[in-house]
Amino acid sequence: MGKGIGHHQIGDSFEGFVLIKDATKGTASNGKPFLTLVLRDATGEIEAKLWDVTGEDEALFVQEQIIRITGEINQFRGKPQMRINSIRLAQATDGIQVADLLEKAPVEREELMTRLTEIIFEMQNPTIQRIVRAIIKKYQEPLSLYPAATRNHHEYVSGLAHHIVSMLKIARELCDLYPQVNKDLLYAGIILHDIGKLKELSGVVSTTYTLQGKLLGHIPMMVEEIGHIARELEVDGEEVLILQHLVLSHHGKAEWGSPTPPLVREAELLHLIDLIDAKMNMLNRALEKVKPGEFTERLYAMDNRSFYKPTFE
Amino acid sequence: MGKGIGHHQIGDSFEGFVLIKDATKGTASNGKPFLTLVLRDATGEIEAKLWDVTGEDEALFVQEQIIRITGEINQFRGKPQMRINSIRLAQATDGIQVADLLEKAPVEREELMTRLTEIIFEMQNPTIQRIVRAIIKKYQEPLSLYPAATRNHHEYVSGLAHHIVSMLKIARELCDLYPQVNKDLLYAGIILHDIGKLKELSGVVSTTYTLQGKLLGHIPMMVEEIGHIARELEVDGEEVLILQHLVLSHHGKAEWGSPTPPLVREAELLHLIDLIDAKMNMLNRALEKVKPGEFTERLYAMDNRSFYKPTFE
Amino acid sequence: MGKGIGHHQIGDSFEGFVLIKDATKGTASNGKPFLTLVLRDATGEIEAKLWDVTGEDEALFVQEQIIRITGEINQFRGKPQMRINSIRLAQATDGIQVADLLEKAPVEREELMTRLTEIIFEMQNPTIQRIVRAIIKKYQEPLSLYPAATRNHHEYVSGLAHHIVSMLKIARELCDLYPQVNKDLLYAGIILHDIGKLKELSGVVSTTYTLQGKLLGHIPMMVEEIGHIARELEVDGEEVLILQHLVLSHHGKAEWGSPTPPLVREAELLHLIDLIDAKMNMLNRALEKVKPGEFTERLYAMDNRSFYKPTFE
Amino acid sequence: MGKGIGHHQIGDSFEGFVLIKDATKGTASNGKPFLTLVLRDATGEIEAKLWDVTGEDEALFVQEQIIRITGEINQFRGKPQMRINSIRLAQATDGIQVADLLEKAPVEREELMTRLTEIIFEMQNPTIQRIVRAIIKKYQEPLSLYPAATRNHHEYVSGLAHHIVSMLKIARELCDLYPQVNKDLLYAGIILHDIGKLKELSGVVSTTYTLQGKLLGHIPMMVEEIGHIARELEVDGEEVLILQHLVLSHHGKAEWGSPTPPLVREAELLHLIDLIDAKMNMLNRALEKVKPGEFTERLYAMDNRSFYKPTFE
Amino acid sequence: MGKGIGHHQIGDSFEGFVLIKDATKGTASNGKPFLTLVLRDATGEIEAKLWDVTGEDEALFVQEQIIRITGEINQFRGKPQMRINSIRLAQATDGIQVADLLEKAPVEREELMTRLTEIIFEMQNPTIQRIVRAIIKKYQEPLSLYPAATRNHHEYVSGLAHHIVSMLKIARELCDLYPQVNKDLLYAGIILHDIGKLKELSGVVSTTYTLQGKLLGHIPMMVEEIGHIARELEVDGEEVLILQHLVLSHHGKAEWGSPTPPLVREAELLHLIDLIDAKMNMLNRALEKVKPGEFTERLYAMDNRSFYKPTFE
Amino acid sequence: MGKGIGHHQIGDSFEGFVLIKDATKGTASNGKPFLTLVLRDATGEIEAKLWDVTGEDEALFVQEQIIRITGEINQFRGKPQMRINSIRLAQATDGIQVADLLEKAPVEREELMTRLTEIIFEMQNPTIQRIVRAIIKKYQEPLSLYPAATRNHHEYVSGLAHHIVSMLKIARELCDLYPQVNKDLLYAGIILHDIGKLKELSGVVSTTYTLQGKLLGHIPMMVEEIGHIARELEVDGEEVLILQHLVLSHHGKAEWGSPTPPLVREAELLHLIDLIDAKMNMLNRALEKVKPGEFTERLYAMDNRSFYKPTFE
Repeated sequence: MGKGIGHHQIGDSFEGFVLIKDATKGTASNGKPFLTLVLRDATGEIEAKLWDVTGEDEALFVQEQIIRITGEINQFRGKPQMRINSIRLAQATDGIQVADLLEKAPVEREELMTRLTEIIFEMQNPTIQRIVRAIIKKYQEPLSLYPAATRNHHEYVSGLAHHIVSMLKIARELCDLYPQVNKDLLYAGIILHDIGKLKELSGVVSTTYTLQGKLLGHIPMMVEEIGHIARELEVDGEEVLILQHLVLSHHGKAEWGSPTPPLVREAELLHLIDLIDAKMNMLNRALEKVKPGEFTERLYAMDNRSFYKPTFE
Repeated sequence: MGKGIGHHQIGDSFEGFVLIKDATKGTASNGKPFLTLVLRDATGEIEAKLWDVTGEDEALFVQEQIIRITGEINQFRGKPQMRINSIRLAQATDGIQVADLLEKAPVEREELMTRLTEIIFEMQNPTIQRIVRAIIKKYQEPLSLYPAATRNHHEYVSGLAHHIVSMLKIARELCDLYPQVNKDLLYAGIILHDIGKLKELSGVVSTTYTLQGKLLGHIPMMVEEIGHIARELEVDGEEVLILQHLVLSHHGKAEWGSPTPPLVREAELLHLIDLIDAKMNMLNRALEKVKPGEFTERLYAMDNRSFYKPTFE
Repeated sequence: MGKGIGHHQIGDSFEGFVLIKDATKGTASNGKPFLTLVLRDATGEIEAKLWDVTGEDEALFVQEQIIRITGEINQFRGKPQMRINSIRLAQATDGIQVADLLEKAPVEREELMTRLTEIIFEMQNPTIQRIVRAIIKKYQEPLSLYPAATRNHHEYVSGLAHHIVSMLKIARELCDLYPQVNKDLLYAGIILHDIGKLKELSGVVSTTYTLQGKLLGHIPMMVEEIGHIARELEVDGEEVLILQHLVLSHHGKAEWGSPTPPLVREAELLHLIDLIDAKMNMLNRALEKVKPGEFTERLYAMDNRSFYKPTFE
Repeated sequence: MGKGIGHHQIGDSFEGFVLIKDATKGTASNGKPFLTLVLRDATGEIEAKLWDVTGEDEALFVQEQIIRITGEINQFRGKPQMRINSIRLAQATDGIQVADLLEKAPVEREELMTRLTEIIFEMQNPTIQRIVRAIIKKYQEPLSLYPAATRNHHEYVSGLAHHIVSMLKIARELCDLYPQVNKDLLYAGIILHDIGKLKELSGVVSTTYTLQGKLLGHIPMMVEEIGHIARELEVDGEEVLILQHLVLSHHGKAEWGSPTPPLVREAELLHLIDLIDAKMNMLNRALEKVKPGEFTERLYAMDNRSFYKPTFE
Repeated sequence: MGKGIGHHQIGDSFEGFVLIKDATKGTASNGKPFLTLVLRDATGEIEAKLWDVTGEDEALFVQEQIIRITGEINQFRGKPQMRINSIRLAQATDGIQVADLLEKAPVEREELMTRLTEIIFEMQNPTIQRIVRAIIKKYQEPLSLYPAATRNHHEYVSGLAHHIVSMLKIARELCDLYPQVNKDLLYAGIILHDIGKLKELSGVVSTTYTLQGKLLGHIPMMVEEIGHIARELEVDGEEVLILQHLVLSHHGKAEWGSPTPPLVREAELLHLIDLIDAKMNMLNRALEKVKPGEFTERLYAMDNRSFYKPTFE
Repeated sequence: MGKGIGHHQIGDSFEGFVLIKDATKGTASNGKPFLTLVLRDATGEIEAKLWDVTGEDEALFVQEQIIRITGEINQFRGKPQMRINSIRLAQATDGIQVADLLEKAPVEREELMTRLTEIIFEMQNPTIQRIVRAIIKKYQEPLSLYPAATRNHHEYVSGLAHHIVSMLKIARELCDLYPQVNKDLLYAGIILHDIGKLKELSGVVSTTYTLQGKLLGHIPMMVEEIGHIARELEVDGEEVLILQHLVLSHHGKAEWGSPTPPLVREAELLHLIDLIDAKMNMLNRALEKVKPGEFTERLYAMDNRSFYKPTFE
């Protein structure tokens, strides 16, 4: 397939398969219609202009279609923009699939799910274990596929599972360093904290927010879900309440979406581990794109900072 | 029973029955133990000192006991404080009960509950009506008795029901003025918005927060409860989601405990009506205690303002 | 006149009379001048491009002119934009007037003014009544015509009077619910609170801020005005001070333009009623434009929220 | 009269005349009444306890009385407190007057007023000059006596006039450095900016806030006053508006009491000069009380900072 | 030595050796002097009253003296307070030393210093290693003894070294998980980040802030120190700048004392690891003092939260 | 050279020499490349479009080149933009130099430096004098040339020296008014406070931030520099610490880049004088560009305010 869209520079030509993420019609100053497409593959995305389009073009080149294009990459208002020279829909014989054009976690989804299952198997508190097992069983399929967010961090296929498994690794070490921590509780909190996103987000391709996601948000939805599962399993006791508290408080502050702040040790730790893994994911991905001696683009979710990559090792 | 504790001035003598709200032991500079009691009746509360107490006194004069006392009201560090001259436990023959010493809503609890029932009966959307009816049925007893808060506003017996019924009156008029408003939805939101407080608060006398109340708060608890009831009733549909949203968003802002702000017209209106009735309750009760031309004490929940009562009518 | 400008969709053609709200000249990439016009009628407004204009065009098509145009509505940078095909000034024989192209309050201005007069007539406190009557008499003409703001809420002909009359309706009901409220004072506060806007805003068409409005603002101007009127009427006494306080404090907080927060019951209530009516006006108008199941555009003055219109009734 | 109250240390005895600033009755743990007096003279103030008081004592030793006392200065909860040994009312023969016990500006009031008059005489813009002259004439007496505030800065007899005259000195130099500044306007702004305090504060001894001061504040009152004077003088024109703007905006920000921020060069400068002179007055007075190498007490109005006095010169 | 001061309850008697942390003289209402002492040993601290003291007592019982006392623990204004029955200075024959009465890190200082040395030995970047080695050599003695803060976290003997070593453990694991991280740089940042506290704090017993500490703070002092050492070692290059940046930015935000926020990956990680270890130290120590089912005291440095200790394991 | 670029209006033609501040390539909708140039001379700057450029054009017309152009000034998206008609590089025979195209301080650099030297000569504290003299000697050349900032205030050649000298004038007067101020300390603080900018900024033409400037900022760099100089001069004592404190705290608040706020009188005064001179510089330059009766453009660094220029004198 050649080099991906994210590895091209201004001035390059591009030829290959991409996914249409978004398509909007406009009218040029000469009165002719054109399409503004947002194109993506596993390496990145770019805005592209298709000039002088026909009604047929409009009908063909729509969101979530795979297309084959050639074009040149120019600069427009300080950002790269592709001028499309040729375009056609992908055909069965091209042998290309949506999954080939999406970015994926650096670890295989099967491996991530196996790791999760092992951790649950290790748990010693039966109440916590039963609740976690029931929820993971219910959400197994989407959990293995969903991103952790629509943008900012772990925004790729299996991103949520990847985020959970990374957090569990950090947790394991912190439990060694601080033996007072309740390992089962912390692990359970990590596994459950963002499961509500499976209801909040619309899916894996062109991810948006669901109506539930907009009106309730993943945190209250997951608190409720734990309550439902506990009722179904007919388990009761402080574990249920504390698990709900961990999920509820994991954003750390009311302003950040947790109406109650962490009030249990493992809740505080869950919040901090979430912060580290999300920030390191953003940071590492941004620094990968620049050379030593350069600054990254501004990272919105990190207070709009631009980070420097030192020249020494 | 004479004038209540809240109607006494510095320099007055007091004689009558009161409830012990709080009792702590201290040691005076002469080395002798004393008790600091917080005493209340339906009209107010006061701190009182009982000097030179015996071990027996300590055992007798404990929280939630009814006692008969005589004493004088002095000033201590700018606040009234009673010096107790005589004290004894209330006896069966005194014919005095806890309920006699608690402040109550200005409307009878039966009347409040009847009003609620009528409103539910009027609802036309069957889904909304079924959910509200089921919840009210489940919580009927505590709802008729609980305060709306531990302090600040409607902090008296049947305070929550009184708050709801006042809000419903305001809502009725606003629905007339703004006919676009969905009346069933707004009424349902008003009735349900604070029902979670019945789990958040410990009871009617010496009200404190429950563990659930501290770790989850009444808002997420009530969102979950609506979910449970909807499952039990096997109702589904947007009404459930929107009702949960109304409860979730009724504090108006993340900083005030609503992780999602109001995003539905009736949610915004619910928030505003809640604000008006809570503030007017605080304000009216504070202004009742002062004369024209005076300022009230500072009202913590109203940005610590002190309000002026004009001299004209 | 056909369907108004606000009822057109992208892709529609438009033909009809509109008012030029704003006109700016630009130069296209082909070196030829063009005009960017903002056009409005009673139903909404739209940006329009008139390409290849002559010097004569520039002189003709200026702010506040009524024109007859035909054109098509396209999308430009995510917003509707009209491409003008033909344009001419309205002529006397077209029988169209500025007032026909401005949005008006849903209640007639005469009716609004009558309602105001009745309320003043009902007042029992003679000082309050005299002051209010004198001010209303002085500002009768503009009060019956001005909008309540340049944008956000009640931004239409007679908007201020409409806002006042709606607030008075809410006030009447709240006075019933909370009989401690001084009705004359609250009514007077509502009637006077925004009269300063008649000096702050430039007029009814193409409303902007006056120099006074920018350097003082309507609140201090109205406090001063009450002082002047009181001197002219030779009335004195606490009523004058309290009325000034109501006007001064009606934005609720220093950050929102009230250097003193409400410190009188009726001042607090005035602030809350103002909030409700302004918000409901914005909200109702925004929701009117969307279908059930959709979200409104973002509402800047409501914390930039986008509101959902439920699908049930 | 010996050393003043502010120059005594813990452990010292005191003998002399003081003014009672505040008197409150309490009851000691032995059941006997006592008086807590706040005593002041020109050098400072101290809390004092008078034990075992009679009803006659209570009647005699009240606010604003001059008394002669002897006592010792102890430490109580980290602060100095006087234990009174003997106390009596001052008598005519003692030849002591209230003015002797109040702190005064370091410059004579006559000199301050002369300086003010000279500055007004220098003004060249007749409108500005007439307004300033009329206001100063009206408020001459209190202006020569009032403090600039109840505490924090220039809180002494003639403090306001002292503050104005110091600000005028700074202004003169800044006008030399920045010749674009309109000197008449800046001088007028400085002279008028705090005249509203003469209505906001109750007087020179035991200064408190008036009802007007609490409900309107000195800024809106002074804006109104300028409007009244302009009407009386029948002057009109932009000068009146700009002077009102200078007064209105001189606190610099909405949060600090100026609903409109400075939008004219001289308004910005007025705000900055006010800041400098107020801060330097606080700072100099606090540093005077400590030795080189020490820190001052915390200064509430300077973000609660405690300042260091270096050991070198 | 019996049970320490921190393990006593209200009502207990105490007998043993303690250190005087603070001593202030007061005068009782009977006119007699008394001493308020703050007493501490390795387990905690308590306020104590010594009544009717002589001048000799005052001279003997001063800050940093070791004394032997007997007394009873009462409650005063909601806090424990000891009433001293007998008191004498410790004597040589008592065999008690200051170090016995101070809390220490749970790991021996020698072990902590050995661990530090090993880590420095492992570093591969020679510039970083030379700088770190030089600084550690210079500050070896105080580094092995100082607390990490005067209160909140690691406020015990060798607290700073303990904090550093714990952070290094976390860092090692995170470097495994995120191999892009520059391990030498992160380790060096951790070791150096708080060395400035050795100049900011006065010592190990009765720790206060030095003048330098108050006027500059440990962060700018350490940035300067790295500059000095680099000059002395005659090393240059980006490593010096980046190490200074890590120290400068480690509080994460301007409001928290870092004028520049982290702009290098390892700087961000250093900030997060510091946060985790400081918070876990506070939290673990607070939870140790309560039983399952209870809440801790409010933790000021953790947003004044009170944490819950669950009842299950 | 004719009228400068900053004195042209929309519709004017321009002919003259300018400096290229920035050049970016784009592709027009017709597929041809164009250059967007930012052009400046001593009077201002403008964006310009050069259409249909060749590869040679791209290579010639780059940053910091002097060019001679003719063109017309149009409006584009509300801002002036030049359409270039002819363009060529300046030649030796044109006799034009970079310095001719940069804005300069209104006072000659030699005069500014002389003034600085005189002030240092007047100092009486030998330690302060030696430190200041050594630093000024070291940085003499850039200090005489650098701007005080990249934009907002004193952003012209010799801007920093101009800012310092203006501040010294204000300081002299304030020292007369408040004789308690340590004049040497205040003068030294003013001279040194922004010297760190000589390392923070890249130079005089096309000024940007250096890596050091981004990662440390001028304040910590200057604190360190004072430490180095003091070591080199082998001076010690409180003066060094206090000078470092003055530099460190001169932004006034942590949020504004001073991790320690001013805690010494002269530090507070330095901060206030800096504020005045920076604001007056911005304000005077903005007001110069508008006529009486107009408002300035919005000033970002002054809370985005737009200032009014009164019509009277």
